[in-house]
Amino acid sequence: MSSHHSRRTPLPIPDVTIEDAFWAPHRETVRTKSLPHQEHQLRTGGQFEALKLEWKPGVAGEPHIFWESDVAKWIEAASYVLAREEDPDLDAAVDEAIALLSGAQQDDGYLNVYFTVVKPGQRFTDLRDAHELYCAGHLIEAGVAHHEATGKTTLLDIVRRYADLIDREFGPGGSCEGGYDGHEEIELALVKLYRATGERRYLDLALRLVDNRGTQPYYFDAECERRGTEGYFGTFLQDRVRRVDWFRQYNQTHLPVREQTETVGHAVRAMYLYTAMADLAAETGDATLTAACERLWDDMVGTKLYVTGGLGALHEIEGFGPAYHLPDRDGYAETCAAIGLVMWAQRMTLLTGEAKYADVLERALYNGVLSGISADGTRYFYGNPLASDGSVERSEWFGCACCPPNLARLLASLEHYIYATDPTGLVVNLYIAGSARLEHGGQTIRLAQATDYPWDGRVRLTLEADHDTDLTLKLRLPDWSDGPTLTIDGTEVDTTIEDGYLHLARTWAPGTVIDLDLGMSPKRVRANQKVAAVLGKVALQNGPIIYCAEGIDNAGAVPALTIRPDAELRIEHDSSSNLDTVTVEGVCERQSGDALYSTDAPKAEPTSIRAVPYFSWANRGKSTMAVWLRETAAGH
Amino acid sequence: MSSHHSRRTPLPIPDVTIEDAFWAPHRETVRTKSLPHQEHQLRTGGQFEALKLEWKPGVAGEPHIFWESDVAKWIEAASYVLAREEDPDLDAAVDEAIALLSGAQQDDGYLNVYFTVVKPGQRFTDLRDAHELYCAGHLIEAGVAHHEATGKTTLLDIVRRYADLIDREFGPGGSCEGGYDGHEEIELALVKLYRATGERRYLDLALRLVDNRGTQPYYFDAECERRGTEGYFGTFLQDRVRRVDWFRQYNQTHLPVREQTETVGHAVRAMYLYTAMADLAAETGDATLTAACERLWDDMVGTKLYVTGGLGALHEIEGFGPAYHLPDRDGYAETCAAIGLVMWAQRMTLLTGEAKYADVLERALYNGVLSGISADGTRYFYGNPLASDGSVERSEWFGCACCPPNLARLLASLEHYIYATDPTGLVVNLYIAGSARLEHGGQTIRLAQATDYPWDGRVRLTLEADHDTDLTLKLRLPDWSDGPTLTIDGTEVDTTIEDGYLHLARTWAPGTVIDLDLGMSPKRVRANQKVAAVLGKVALQNGPIIYCAEGIDNAGAVPALTIRPDAELRIEHDSSSNLDTVTVEGVCERQSGDALYSTDAPKAEPTSIRAVPYFSWANRGKSTMAVWLRETAAGH
Repeated sequence: MSSHHSRRTPLPIPDVTIEDAFWAPHRETVRTKSLPHQEHQLRTGGQFEALKLEWKPGVAGEPHIFWESDVAKWIEAASYVLAREEDPDLDAAVDEAIALLSGAQQDDGYLNVYFTVVKPGQRFTDLRDAHELYCAGHLIEAGVAHHEATGKTTLLDIVRRYADLIDREFGPGGSCEGGYDGHEEIELALVKLYRATGERRYLDLALRLVDNRGTQPYYFDAECERRGTEGYFGTFLQDRVRRVDWFRQYNQTHLPVREQTETVGHAVRAMYLYTAMADLAAETGDATLTAACERLWDDMVGTKLYVTGGLGALHEIEGFGPAYHLPDRDGYAETCAAIGLVMWAQRMTLLTGEAKYADVLERALYNGVLSGISADGTRYFYGNPLASDGSVERSEWFGCACCPPNLARLLASLEHYIYATDPTGLVVNLYIAGSARLEHGGQTIRLAQATDYPWDGRVRLTLEADHDTDLTLKLRLPDWSDGPTLTIDGTEVDTTIEDGYLHLARTWAPGTVIDLDLGMSPKRVRANQKVAAVLGKVALQNGPIIYCAEGIDNAGAVPALTIRPDAELRIEHDSSSNLDTVTVEGVCERQSGDALYSTDAPKAEPTSIRAVPYFSWANRGKSTMAVWLRETAAGH
Repeated sequence: MSSHHSRRTPLPIPDVTIEDAFWAPHRETVRTKSLPHQEHQLRTGGQFEALKLEWKPGVAGEPHIFWESDVAKWIEAASYVLAREEDPDLDAAVDEAIALLSGAQQDDGYLNVYFTVVKPGQRFTDLRDAHELYCAGHLIEAGVAHHEATGKTTLLDIVRRYADLIDREFGPGGSCEGGYDGHEEIELALVKLYRATGERRYLDLALRLVDNRGTQPYYFDAECERRGTEGYFGTFLQDRVRRVDWFRQYNQTHLPVREQTETVGHAVRAMYLYTAMADLAAETGDATLTAACERLWDDMVGTKLYVTGGLGALHEIEGFGPAYHLPDRDGYAETCAAIGLVMWAQRMTLLTGEAKYADVLERALYNGVLSGISADGTRYFYGNPLASDGSVERSEWFGCACCPPNLARLLASLEHYIYATDPTGLVVNLYIAGSARLEHGGQTIRLAQATDYPWDGRVRLTLEADHDTDLTLKLRLPDWSDGPTLTIDGTEVDTTIEDGYLHLARTWAPGTVIDLDLGMSPKRVRANQKVAAVLGKVALQNGPIIYCAEGIDNAGAVPALTIRPDAELRIEHDSSSNLDTVTVEGVCERQSGDALYSTDAPKAEPTSIRAVPYFSWANRGKSTMAVWLRETAAGH
């Protein structure tokens, strides 16, 4: 179902193939390693078990308020796998989980273990802290994905009944009229449910939740008064953020959403809200929502985005700091926030037709998202710092396990992000070898994409059709491009660039071959001088890949390295890891003693500095690491 | 009264004069501006008024738990002024404050407004949070100082009665047997009271409080259980430090003091505790206390001391971070912590006879302490960051106003820190023009000191006596010295250096002139490579003075500056401020746009970088500032 007010529509999973040497192996790892590993964690960690509603007060293993969301994201990820290939074991495991969810659903449609067995009778009384609608949102997303993947309605029916209950509770005269969630998520899920079912009231509910947010009188105060106690987290979060007004920013309730101009607070919450706002703009054509999204985007991209596409400078709120506060070693950059950014950026690029959003999508995907998962698919980063003293490693699992299944569902649904259609033809947002299929001009058209991206900026597109077709191809020109060259059947052609896309509008003969060279070369990236944390330092980038130096490749001395200002950045392929590396000449400084302060200058020895893709770090044991490397100032 | 087990004894205030061009004006400002300004704050802020015990529940102006300490430190500072000069107005104001304190004292000796009118009946039940003994300690220090300065016993009698009550409550069978304070201070005060009165039980009480600290069963847990509620700060501080064991480190109760090896927690608390430990070692000869102090000192100086002598990297606990975590812009470095360091360092240098402690004393005094007060004496820094984005200014006062009167009492008692005696003669720890008087070998000896220190490392000492004297002079050789030269009556002499002092043992004729050139030149200082925050940067130092660049002198662009590696550091005197400055050639980088990230190299223009003494920053309006300046790595 296409959105009425969106410029573009993504191709569905079955119409896209990914057959490249970069993502296809990662996705196979997700299918064969991550999903079984996560299923094991959910079975042994209590998440599956809790759905039996057998927990009793005083017994160990009290169900946690987040747990449905872990199960739901795992089902959603598994569904995307099932959408493209048969996997009877996975299908059966998903059916088992759905049966458990069915058993946990109450007669009136309610489905939340914590408020059924731990705090019965208190449902929807702690919207600010208790993640009830957040869990509901993930269940809804899972139900939609499962239905689209398998055609089954088992989970979709469950979540529709639950959504119907929520609609009543949050509708006129309901117990939560005027309310909204403390952790955004359900809004974007309800838009998906609307698209899957055509039921307008799900869209209206999403819109109501977004419209209510941040209005006066302040719902969370009223809720707290009615309850007579602090919420689930007590004053923990308020104490962390120190002031009540900051705490309202924490969950983006400080202002009505259309009046919000700065990206603030908890980064995942923010991304999910903004994604929903873009979705709602796409469905309703509400230009005030689009404008709010554009303002928030500009603030984020202009002042608060890590070069890796990570978001959230502050550990204590898992969220945004002030403008330009982007500490590398002490930063946060939660994996889920980068995933949320991919989602928001996709909605924005579809909504507006502008490539700049897909540029950021790509930055996050290849760096701050992919760094969240180990090469073997079974260890995860919750935070993704841009420098490490060697103490940081990925973990098998987390008490709050939002990131692992979130990674799985994004990587398993990567098809959604590559191509889009508009009335004139096909848009290529990401360069990933494989193919796209679309119906256009009365025939089925297939666009085959061959490339060694992200290591090589050359892309060959072959148009396959039964007969000639009038079609506009829009090929994203990445923000890192040195300038493209393009040939059609071997003849160089001039192209126009609009909104960041190369436009190729013509009548295509079947078999036409388009060779696009995006112009990729390794480069130094510098942050704005207001970013005090990395002043005088450079990051190395080639194509979409941000590099980092790890101690294991550099005699353990990453902080001691300085790049020579004029030294060439040499790309070398490392056959053991199958990754490209960057090597550059520099110096390594060695201090003469252990004193805290000294007037002795350190000894500087020439050295070759080797950097590996940031996403690949911490796969070879503990090691120091830095994305930002010192470089001599020009002019010396 | 000299301490039995201390190597040295400081000269009393009346035997020392300060007649230099650096400190004398600062001290005159304290007398004529700071003390009246602080008195005004105490009169209008409620601190004086509260002592009338007229506050009633429900009325505004509830007395605060810290307030006696503000009054006490102001009295102490005023007393030091009165010790050296007559000031009838000040004397009368002090007498008025003492009369108020006398009126607030209860029949049994108790003296604390908060627990008399706000929480009557709850005295000594919240030792962890409520600062009761901390306030008592400051009252005792004030009583001793006032008695020594004026000969009056009005306040001394008051604090003795209070100390006697505390001794009973914390003694065998008392209500607080086994207890100790949550904010250390009274321990060092009781040692002063012992020295002033000769009453051994005050020393024993101090020792008991120190010995009890951190033992099992844990007193603060037992106290909390008895009380049945959280302490004054609730869970605020625990939440900030996140874990219970860290919270025990916060007030240095994680281990018995002799087992503590790392400087941890709230920095002022730590300094006051360690000062008391050194005092007790000096009185009792307990080598285990000396050894603990030495271990803690080495940890602090080796891993946690700012180059300015500031202490405490973490805002959230006003205290120490992990080793080598010394952020410049986001650091804390509370003025009171640097003052506490001066106190501890003095005790250590007296106790051990080693100059290295006085080196750190000097570093703190000329930088991290003096930065706490404005040139006009009426504005104060609570924290003293080593870099600023231009948003930081000194304040007239604080809700928690510990720093202003603490600065006043230290600067007003600077005489204590310059000279010390030992059985062989006189020790010079600080170079400050003026004089010292001592009885030695049956006659009064006066050592006149002439110098333009800290701007000039040349010092002339003239020995004045009635006849020849055998005496050893020990002159501290600062850690920044390039190597000293010394002449006696114009003849260069070789000297031996022991424990960091030049030793001159001889028979001196009256009028002998010693010319000492300490060897002062401006230099670059680098931090250990483990200090990630300032890697690749240098600080500029000349003599004891640490310099900083302010935006106002550098076209507003401090973060954009880079020093040329081989450029000369030129000392220039600024006649408008009467301060020395350092000028060095470097470059100023200008980025081409406002983007958060760019591949464009910044334009680098040659520039002269001007740095001013760190202590003098923020006296000319808001400005960016940095102590640590980027420098090109050697070898480029």
